[in-house]
Amino acid sequence: METIEIIGLVAATLTTSAFVPQVYKTWKTKSTKDISITMYSAFLVGTSLWLFYGIHHDSLAIILANGITAILVLFMIFLKFRYRQV
Amino acid sequence: METIEIIGLVAATLTTSAFVPQVYKTWKTKSTKDISITMYSAFLVGTSLWLFYGIHHDSLAIILANGITAILVLFMIFLKFRYRQV
Repeated sequence: METIEIIGLVAATLTTSAFVPQVYKTWKTKSTKDISITMYSAFLVGTSLWLFYGIHHDSLAIILANGITAILVLFMIFLKFRYRQV
Repeated sequence: METIEIIGLVAATLTTSAFVPQVYKTWKTKSTKDISITMYSAFLVGTSLWLFYGIHHDSLAIILANGITAILVLFMIFLKFRYRQV
């Protein structure tokens, strides 16, 4: 595999898994005051559309990256409502 | 332009601009306690690698989307340190 494609894979892995430490932090602290629900809502719609795009283009990379991100983002939205604060 | 490509563009616009309401919220509240610095650090490295990938592949879409995201993420990291809380 070409070096540039490996760089692309590392990039995709990082921007997908980046949400894991945020989910973990929110899960542990139960504090969501500083989290923007607008950001996560936009991300959920965006990654869902990417998923649709990936399925249409038969791209496993796009499907995987956005499928996992969508699940993590959905979980953040769940936590935001679960630990609702003003 | 094909409908599926318009869907891809809307998806890219959403996952890029999603960070704007988070930056705005953090900027206004000056509160960063619930924000995971690990998430934004991983996102910064990830989008920087995507930028590199986009430049190599001469893809304006990848360059634009990740360039803008990297700037917004960098600003969030700046805010996290500027309004540092335990």
